[in-house]
Parts: sequence; C-alpha cells; structure tokens
Amino acid sequence: MIDWTRGYDRATLSSDLVAAVIVTVMLIPQSLAYAALAGLPPQVGLYASIVPLLMYAIFGSSRVLAVGPVAVVSLMTATAIGDLAQAGSAAYGTLAITLAFMSGVMLLLMGMLRLGFLANFLSHPVISGFITASALLIAAGQLKVILGVKVEGHNFFELVLGLLRQLSHIHTLTATLGLVTVAFLFWARKSMKPLLQRLGLGPKLADGVAKAAPVAGIAVTALLTWALGWHEQGVRIVGTVPQGLPPLTLPSWDMSILQQLALPALLISVVGFVESVSVGQTLAAKRRQRIVPDRELVALGASNLGAALTGGFPVTGGFARSVVNFDAGAQTPAAGVFTAAGILLAALLLTPALYYVPQAILSATIVVAVLSLVDLRILRSTWVYSRSDFSAVFVTLLVTLAAGVETGLVAGVALSLVLYLYKTSRPHIAEVGLVPGTEHFRNVLRQKVLVSPQLASLRVDESLYFANARVLEDRINALVAERPQLKHVVLQCSAINDIDTSALESLEAIDQRLRDAGISLHLSEVKGPVMDKLQVTDFLQHLSGKVYLSHYQAVTQLAPEFLQSSEIHS
Amino acid sequence: MIDWTRGYDRATLSSDLVAAVIVTVMLIPQSLAYAALAGLPPQVGLYASIVPLLMYAIFGSSRVLAVGPVAVVSLMTATAIGDLAQAGSAAYGTLAITLAFMSGVMLLLMGMLRLGFLANFLSHPVISGFITASALLIAAGQLKVILGVKVEGHNFFELVLGLLRQLSHIHTLTATLGLVTVAFLFWARKSMKPLLQRLGLGPKLADGVAKAAPVAGIAVTALLTWALGWHEQGVRIVGTVPQGLPPLTLPSWDMSILQQLALPALLISVVGFVESVSVGQTLAAKRRQRIVPDRELVALGASNLGAALTGGFPVTGGFARSVVNFDAGAQTPAAGVFTAAGILLAALLLTPALYYVPQAILSATIVVAVLSLVDLRILRSTWVYSRSDFSAVFVTLLVTLAAGVETGLVAGVALSLVLYLYKTSRPHIAEVGLVPGTEHFRNVLRQKVLVSPQLASLRVDESLYFANARVLEDRINALVAERPQLKHVVLQCSAINDIDTSALESLEAIDQRLRDAGISLHLSEVKGPVMDKLQVTDFLQHLSGKVYLSHYQAVTQLAPEFLQSSEIHS
Repeated sequence: MIDWTRGYDRATLSSDLVAAVIVTVMLIPQSLAYAALAGLPPQVGLYASIVPLLMYAIFGSSRVLAVGPVAVVSLMTATAIGDLAQAGSAAYGTLAITLAFMSGVMLLLMGMLRLGFLANFLSHPVISGFITASALLIAAGQLKVILGVKVEGHNFFELVLGLLRQLSHIHTLTATLGLVTVAFLFWARKSMKPLLQRLGLGPKLADGVAKAAPVAGIAVTALLTWALGWHEQGVRIVGTVPQGLPPLTLPSWDMSILQQLALPALLISVVGFVESVSVGQTLAAKRRQRIVPDRELVALGASNLGAALTGGFPVTGGFARSVVNFDAGAQTPAAGVFTAAGILLAALLLTPALYYVPQAILSATIVVAVLSLVDLRILRSTWVYSRSDFSAVFVTLLVTLAAGVETGLVAGVALSLVLYLYKTSRPHIAEVGLVPGTEHFRNVLRQKVLVSPQLASLRVDESLYFANARVLEDRINALVAERPQLKHVVLQCSAINDIDTSALESLEAIDQRLRDAGISLHLSEVKGPVMDKLQVTDFLQHLSGKVYLSHYQAVTQLAPEFLQSSEIHS
Repeated sequence: MIDWTRGYDRATLSSDLVAAVIVTVMLIPQSLAYAALAGLPPQVGLYASIVPLLMYAIFGSSRVLAVGPVAVVSLMTATAIGDLAQAGSAAYGTLAITLAFMSGVMLLLMGMLRLGFLANFLSHPVISGFITASALLIAAGQLKVILGVKVEGHNFFELVLGLLRQLSHIHTLTATLGLVTVAFLFWARKSMKPLLQRLGLGPKLADGVAKAAPVAGIAVTALLTWALGWHEQGVRIVGTVPQGLPPLTLPSWDMSILQQLALPALLISVVGFVESVSVGQTLAAKRRQRIVPDRELVALGASNLGAALTGGFPVTGGFARSVVNFDAGAQTPAAGVFTAAGILLAALLLTPALYYVPQAILSATIVVAVLSLVDLRILRSTWVYSRSDFSAVFVTLLVTLAAGVETGLVAGVALSLVLYLYKTSRPHIAEVGLVPGTEHFRNVLRQKVLVSPQLASLRVDESLYFANARVLEDRINALVAERPQLKHVVLQCSAINDIDTSALESLEAIDQRLRDAGISLHLSEVKGPVMDKLQVTDFLQHLSGKVYLSHYQAVTQLAPEFLQSSEIHS
C-alpha cells in the first residue's frame, strides 16, 4: 500500500473529489458500453467499476490509475466465453465471473512469484498489431449495432463482408442516430474544446464540457427516444437495468470450464497487466513517482477477484479513464474510492434513467473510443527500422483479424521470439584490422586497415550461446581453410556478455582444431563477468594461446612485424 | 560433390581399400545389432549400410564420414514406430522405410532451404543429456536380451524395476554368455591393444586386432552354439537371414501414418544431422579440411532416401565407424564405395554364417558401444559453470529417461530456449564511475570510483530488445525517484549490439519521462550498426541529450565539476 494517508489535507481532498466527479460522469456510459461489448447486461459494467476500484486503491502502487472494464479486455472476454454459452444468459454471466476470478488468481500468483517480467515478452510490435487489430474487430462488431443489422462472422473479414451484404437491410432510423452520434463524438473530441474556448470559456471548463459530450449525447438521444417513441419504431434500447447493490457472486468450479478458460484467462491477465503498467508508468513518471510492477500484479489480481465476487467481469487499468483522472487533478487513490462511491450511487439510483438509451449510441461511443487505438503508422516505421519487427506487427495484425484475439496474440509472441532467436543465432562477426596510426581496430570490409597474413582478428558482436556457437566454428574453419599462412586467431571479446556451456565447448573444439592445424587461439578484452566464469573451468589452462587485456596488445605481441609487413586492405 | 577424383592414384586407392576392409568387418555385426535395436530383422541393418554409403559418397562434403545405422537413431526409430505396429511384422518394416523416407525428404528440404542453422538450437547440454539418457535406455533394453528375460517397460525406471523383479527368471546360459561377452568387450576395448603391443605386435596391427575383437567374439560364440547345440537349450539365435540383394521398397502413403511420423521424423533428422556434422567437422579439421553443413543435409537426405528405397531404415553419419575409417587411413569417399561393396558381398554370401549367432552377443556389443556414450561428468561441469546449463542437462536427461526420447528432446530444447530468453530478459546493468586517474569507467559496486550526484552513468551488458527493454525503464525510473539532484543520465552502449523497435520505443519513453522530470538522456559509445539504424528514425533529433563518442568525453562535458565535486563511492 502507498502511504498517501499521511499529510492528507483539505486541498488534496478537494482535488480528489473533483477528479472523482469527472471520472464518474465519464465512466457510467463507458461501463455500460464495455459490458455490452463483452456480451453482458449493462449493470455488470457498473458492478465491475465499484469494488475493483476499491481493491486497486488499497493494493496499487500508482496514485492515479483507474481500473475497470476496458475495450480490448472486454473483447477478449467475449471471445473467450462466446463459444461456451449464449450471450445474455445466466451461464454466460457465470463464465465471465469465472474468467475474472481465474485472471485474478493468476495475476496474484504472478505478483507473489515476481513473474511480472513475463509481460516483457509481449513486444511493442506485437502489442501494437494486437491492439490495432482488436480495435478494428471491435469497431466492425459495433458497426452492426449502429446500422441495426444482424451479421454473423467468425473473423474481421467475414464481419466486413457480412456488413456489406446487409447494407440493403439497415434500419434507417438506428443507422442515422448511430452515425450522427459517431460524427458528433469525433467532432467533440477534436474541435469542441477549441470552439468553446473561442466562445469565451476558460480552457479547464471547455475541456470538462468537451469530455462530457458523450454523456450529453446519451442524455439527448435517450430523451428524444422517450419523447418520440423511437423504441417503438425498431430502435433497440438498453431497457430495464436492475437497481441496487452489486450482488455477491461465486465462480464456477467445473473443471472442464476451468480448463477451457485457462489460456484465455492467462492472455487476458498478461494483456491487461501490460496495458495497465504502461499507463501507470507513463503517468507516474510525469510527477517523478514510481510504480512497482510486481505490486501492480497483486493489485490487479485483487481487483479482478473483487470483480468476480461482485457480479463483474475482467478489468484492468484503463488508459482513457486514468488520463482523465490525472488531468482532472487526482492526487491520491482516494479519488478512486470516491469514484467507486459515485458509480455505486449510479447503480443504486440512476439505472431507471438508462432505460431509453439506444444501444446504437453506446456502440457509437465504443467505436469512437477504439478507433483512436488504431495505429497503422507502426507498419511504416517498423518497415524502415527493422524488417523482423515489421513482420511481427504484420503477422500479429493479420492473424488477429483472421483468426481472433487469442490465436493472434499467441502467434505474435511466438513469431517475435523465433525472430529474436534467429537474429541472435546469426551474429555479426567482423574481421577487424588496425586503423593506421591508432590503437583502434575496425571492420576490414568498412575501412582501410592494416592486416597480417599470419594473424586473423575476429570481433563477435553477440554473446556466445548454443544457437550461434557453431557459426563461429564455421567462420573459423573457413578462415583456416582459406589461409595457409595463418598462425594466430585472436577473438576480440568486448561485445561478448556471456559464454554458455555449448559455446565454451565450441571454443574448446575450435582451439583443438586450430592446434591440430598448427594455429593458436587467443582472446582479448574479455569482460569481468565472463572471465570470472571461464576461470572456474580449465579452458584457460588448455588454451593454445593467451588472454590479452587489449586487442592492440595482443596483435603487437603476436605479430611484431605487423606494422612493417602488413598490407592495407581496402 | 567433392572433386576428389582428380589426382586419384594407386597410393590413395590402396589407402581407401585397406580402410574399407577394416570398416566392413566392423560394420557387419554393428549393422545387425542396430537393426535388432530398432526392432527390425538383421538383414535390414546390412541393407541400410549399402546404398546410403553410396549416396553419401556422391553428395557428402566430408571425405571420411561413414553413414549407416547408429545407436540413438535406431532407438528413436523403435520408439517412433513401436506403438504403431508389432516389431518384426511386415507393417513394422514399412513404417521404418516410411520414417527413413520422410526423414530423407525433410533433410533434403532443410538443405535446399539452407535451414542447417536449425540444428544449432540443440544446445550441447541438451545433446549431452539426451545422448546419455538414450544410451542408458538402450543399455537397459538390451540387458533383458542379455539376461534372457521378458520385461515390458514404458520408461527407463520401469525397465530397471522390471529387470530387478525378473532376476530369478534369468536364463543362466544366455546370461553367462552375454555377461562374459560384455566383460570381454570392455577388456578388449581398454586393455587388448597394450597387451598385444607388449606381446610384440606393432601398434597398427595391435589396434586392428583389438578392433576385430567383437567380430572374433561373434564368430567364437556362433561356433560354440553350433557345436554344443546351445540354441536347443534356450539360447536365442539370429536364425535365418535371407541371402540376396537389398529389395526395392516404397514408403507408405497413408496420410494418418505420415502425420503420426512427422514429429519423430523431424527429431530423427535433426539429431542425426547434429551427430553427423559434429563427427564430420571434428575429423575434417584434423586435416585442415572443411565440411559444408547445408551440403551435409542434402547428402544425409539422399542417404535416407536411399535407405528407404532399398529396404533399410533411418541412417546418419556414425561416430565409431567414421573414426575407424579415418584412423584406418581413408583418403576419399571411394573408401565408402568400397565399404558398401563389402557389405553387399556380405549380404549376398555371408548371411548363412550368421544363423547361429546368439542374440545376446549382438546385445552385448550394443551395450558396450552405448555405455561409452554415457557422460555424467557434464552434470558436474555444468553445475560449476552455469546453473541454467545444468538444469538443461538434468531436465533433458530425466525427462528422456522417464518419458522417452521424443518428449525428452522437445522438453530439453524448449527449456534451454526459455532459460536463454529469461537470461537475456534480465540484463546486467551496471552503474559505472570513473576510475581515478584514468579515462576508464567501472562498476561502482566493484571498484572505488568517482561519481557525481547530478549525473548517472549506466552500462547495459546486453542488446536491448523487447524482453529486457522494460528492465532498463524500471532501473532508470528507480534512479530518478531516488536522486532528486539528478540532471543527466548517460547510457554507455559499448555492449549493445542491437536495439529493436520495442527497445527504441522504450528509450523514447525513458527520454520523455526524464524530460518531464527535468533530466537529459545521453548515449555514449554507440556501435556503428546500431547508429546506422537509429539514424533512419527521428529518435536522435528528439533526444533530450547528445550522443558522445566516448563515455569519458560525455561525463567531462556534462559534469565539468565532476573531478572536483565528486565523491568516492566504495
């Protein structure tokens, strides 16, 4: 827990209260919308925004992170349980609770076992591709609600094709309402604040009004629907939302269900953790604060357990709500407690007011929110910077769109690991020569340097381990076969951070083969930790050559004729 | 193909012929024994030692490698097809042919796609653990033949327990024969050559006679069995071995069989390739020759296809036979062609002579051969050198013994990759300070160095990539939170061989957060290839600090008061 209670004064309290009010207003429609996205009744969205907030306030290490339902995790929830039960059924709700429970247990365990580093294996390219694809999947899914059509599709392409086929069957009133709202929300997001400021509002107030635009949109369309009876003309509305406290609930203990949900729960945990930690870190750094990743795991675990026990579904720290909380001036986790109280009040009192809210409007708020997550520039920037990163983005994006969130994520992680291993298995090995007039050695292929026919200097730009040890063997075997005059091979080890058992045996084999061919193997610039390791073995005693502190020293001692007899290689 | 035909003269011919005779004598019993180990009739072992040798002579890049059945691959063959058909049945033989065919196709494809590097992912610890476990499995399996008992066991421990339970049922004559042979073979291997030399034989002749010991053992026991009628007293003999040319055979095209054999065929291909290449490389280097791994794949592929089309089973380059070939003076692949001719003659003429050979004697030769592969010292040496390599050996060994060759190998490879990724995901990051009176920087925790409260110097001993980028973020976040006076962070990049997209974004995030906190981020000693990559991005333009050629230059420019105001950290 953070010790933020000490020195908590009236000024801090008022900052926290103001932030809580703003976040509460923003969260009410968002919670409903994400519950719908997950295939759950609207009140579940509210339930998932009460106890989880309290849990995070108790256990979290960020002062401003706001947890609750978020877009990608809601989609992953729908994917995970969509095949196991009918959306909206009681069984479906129990599955969502079970998923939150399992994710909570996993996050808690990962936190207690300090496994937070596992999340590092989700690379930025994979996350980017995954988030963009998820956002497109969500947008395509919501578009059918906005257009008032029924479309079944197992992947993005089927969904889009289905939407195109159904274009003649769209429900005009719903579609008009939905598309106008989407346009209004995009406009509000971009142009409302500047407009209000030009109209004379202060920047803070203008910002607040612009942020309230979704709520205003919902209120206006709900009023219109009530007044004009649009729900009798085929516009689907939210309908009755039960009033009251969140229920106490328990997960399912059915082993076959637990097995089927294990992988999705793990993926939801890791994705949620990555999203939450990156938001938390970004905001903490702005105030020179810090978050503790392993503590975040525990806090998110507790939040999900809280969600599971009070009728919710999987939650995590959300980007939009946390930024709003931060911008609104929240100082301590108390703001989260006050927000929870606000949502609780909404669940107790406000739900009848939600009856006439058109479903298409909730979908419109989701579409606008998720389309800001779509980032296709990463394709261009990785293409320029690194082809292997590009392929990780591209494959994750494509597989997620074509085969769903779980397959996409697993394929992306697997591919990025394979590409990394492939890269390290083909290390850059440069033959180096002396830059005339200096003690520096550079690649013979890049610069004019001095070399000797009797001595070969190799610099390996990678730690030596099993996957690349043989590459060095091959390179040295080739050298020996090419150069009959060769007497010495010197390895410059300045970039070798580790030598594992395979590489050590490989070095022994190289040394043995060189010795058989009348050549000595030397090392230079071996790092301290590597030298420590080598010294517990008998490698250095058996080595045909010596270990030199600097490469220059090695070369001048082994080939004193070097500076005289050597030729310039260009 | 190697151009060894040019300059082929009478001296080379005679060297090759002598080597071929010695290898042929050694191969006949070995081929029978490995066929039995694979669960196949004895003549199959001979067939697998004819055409594959010719194929290798045509396509191989080693001058002395001898291909044919080997112990580990024979065990893997038995494991792969043992569950699919009854050993000794015609279906079993077809499965062995299919396995050789698939392995041949895979090896050929790998060679043509230049995928030889894949074999590098079998680390030395995994290979060691795997070979030792396989040898123990083989020895335990052969022990039941030697003792003349029937034991069923799905793993090593069940086999050993089963053997112990059957001790009262051993067939005394068989067991005596088998154990005496084992003892004789061990003695011959260790002490026969020195004894013969003391008796006045030349070292070359003594060596040849010692190598012929297994053949002599087989001949003597076969004669005794015939003379004393041991086969009528329950000693199992080889029996009728058909005489004649290898048959022309085709693999099965049954899709379900091909699917079931795909993974075993892949594992056999990779293990066989690794064994073959390491033997080939070791021998080639002794004469300053070279082998070409991707060509070896093609040659082994052709050899296995040859085996599949002529009634054989999976083959690879064997250690023992290649060393014998080398030691006996083979100069060119012609020796292999002559050996193939020798085995062909044996298949045509010699098989009736094998009728009375006791099976226990063949098992004894296998046990003695494989026990030389058991290497438990690797457990101790890896324990001292690297705990993660130790666990790779240990897990591979244990899982292979407990769950079989395929599971063991896959578990070993997976574990060693996970351990490597884990290691690189937690890079060594040292805070460095100036060694007084020099321009060198060293770890503040190891040496007395000068540091400044306004400047932090960090050296990262690993390439930056997705799995470790966040570690650097955490480390720098911690630094910033601890040191209110901090103005500059300088990363010494001499050991950073690559920066991927994730790490680049991480560096951008670090820079942004430092800037928000009023701190500048600088880099020093960035390598050429890394600098090339960074220059295509806008990272360097947006960087809050600068890039310095040397770390000393960075520190003296950024903290000119450094040498005066700094404190000695000890």
